[in-house]
Amino acid sequence: MNYEKLFETIVKKHSFLCVGLDTEIEKIPSFLQKRKDPIFEFNKRIIDATHEYAVAYKPNVAFYESAGAKGWTSLDLTVRYIKDNHPDIFVIADAKRGDIGNTSKMYAKAFLENMPFDAITVAPYMGEDSVTPFLLYDEKWVVLLALTSNRGADDFQYHNEDGLKLFERVLSVSQKWGTINNMMYVVGATHAVMLNSIRKLVPDHFLLIPGVGAQGGSLEEVSKYGLNSKCGLLVNSSRGIIFADSSANFDKIAGQKAKEIQVEMEKYLRQHNLI
Amino acid sequence: MNYEKLFETIVKKHSFLCVGLDTEIEKIPSFLQKRKDPIFEFNKRIIDATHEYAVAYKPNVAFYESAGAKGWTSLDLTVRYIKDNHPDIFVIADAKRGDIGNTSKMYAKAFLENMPFDAITVAPYMGEDSVTPFLLYDEKWVVLLALTSNRGADDFQYHNEDGLKLFERVLSVSQKWGTINNMMYVVGATHAVMLNSIRKLVPDHFLLIPGVGAQGGSLEEVSKYGLNSKCGLLVNSSRGIIFADSSANFDKIAGQKAKEIQVEMEKYLRQHNLI
Repeated sequence: MNYEKLFETIVKKHSFLCVGLDTEIEKIPSFLQKRKDPIFEFNKRIIDATHEYAVAYKPNVAFYESAGAKGWTSLDLTVRYIKDNHPDIFVIADAKRGDIGNTSKMYAKAFLENMPFDAITVAPYMGEDSVTPFLLYDEKWVVLLALTSNRGADDFQYHNEDGLKLFERVLSVSQKWGTINNMMYVVGATHAVMLNSIRKLVPDHFLLIPGVGAQGGSLEEVSKYGLNSKCGLLVNSSRGIIFADSSANFDKIAGQKAKEIQVEMEKYLRQHNLI
Repeated sequence: MNYEKLFETIVKKHSFLCVGLDTEIEKIPSFLQKRKDPIFEFNKRIIDATHEYAVAYKPNVAFYESAGAKGWTSLDLTVRYIKDNHPDIFVIADAKRGDIGNTSKMYAKAFLENMPFDAITVAPYMGEDSVTPFLLYDEKWVVLLALTSNRGADDFQYHNEDGLKLFERVLSVSQKWGTINNMMYVVGATHAVMLNSIRKLVPDHFLLIPGVGAQGGSLEEVSKYGLNSKCGLLVNSSRGIIFADSSANFDKIAGQKAKEIQVEMEKYLRQHNLI
């Protein structure tokens, strides 16, 4: 999917919501546990109930890998279910991969070629040749980790050389590798006010904001400091939507939660004259 | 496996060789391609031919993931084949994972609980809480990326705050998270002379050296600067062993290549009075 098409979908749906499919088998309602593939069954119902309010989905690959080969099949079925039924929805493999060139090439093949993901999250530690193999696919994207929302972000991401923090160096150097059409950045929402200075480094790129909802960021603040002239934001919520309820109505409740966020997003999109 | 047991195996085998199982389907001899699981068949023969000379194996997870759920099954069979037949051999999942705590916990489950890997390579970018979930298993290890052997290592790993480069900060800070009994470091062999100063920061830890063989590091230099009183090195060779030959005799040639390296290692172990 290209930049313009993504923006079109945002405008059409009045939303920049990404629903995180962190599908933990133990948290799936018990009545689904007896099914042949409970993870995929759960995802299907979540997708059916939320797709109207979401412009993106983000399966968290760890939760599928922890179920082995079976989990890998659930992941494959999930991304195909989304793209087959909702081709205008952007699907991100939250995989945090990154290795030497010939190895990153294999990860790219796994997610962007063998499965129809639009994007994959990549860790920047190993530098350019660990990232560029993911950028060789037309209309596919890298979502590069810059500033994460966890406590450990403090350990290395603020390491400061002559006034340039490591995450700022990642934002700056990596712009030589990709363009606004194939590179996004992960920026933790716990640092909403920092989006001000981050937007000076990356005014036009899309940013994926992971920390709204269970991780506690404020959507209002993120929108205030992060929105640009083409929206430029995908804001993720995982547990706050998909595990909001564990009854037989879990999907209906998930849909309500997604709608609540979409309605709030619509307000900010209007305030910024984007719709 | 614990530190003492690993050292015992090194002394017994006169070797600190790790064989990298970067099993690329296209490079497998054609007569194996017709088998039901060519990747596992290939690995089995490589393991049978090289186990006498190796103290560790390191499947590169990307090469298995690129074959989807089937590849995941080949990976699972491979690690079980090694541990069932050679329980004294150390097996590393070269996966370069690392994410927020609840996600790293899932990756740890996938590799250290559901599969019998002894260790997993982890990227440090997201800091402490992205690494510690892998350290909760008895006699299991994290192999943390410090200095990698690829060109892109220059992009961020040398970022320098008050004389402390990022990779040195990783070596230093992470010693609070684990011990010499559950943490190793990846240090690229293209920087053999730098092992001198790296050994000042981590005198007792095992180092995994990825870049000998096809990636071109010198085993002599690495041994000179890297060996400590408990060996403290695992030196990896992948393509130089497993794809040395593509005939029906590929496994025999792989065994010869592994033996050549083991014989050279024996010399350095003697020079350092370790055997």
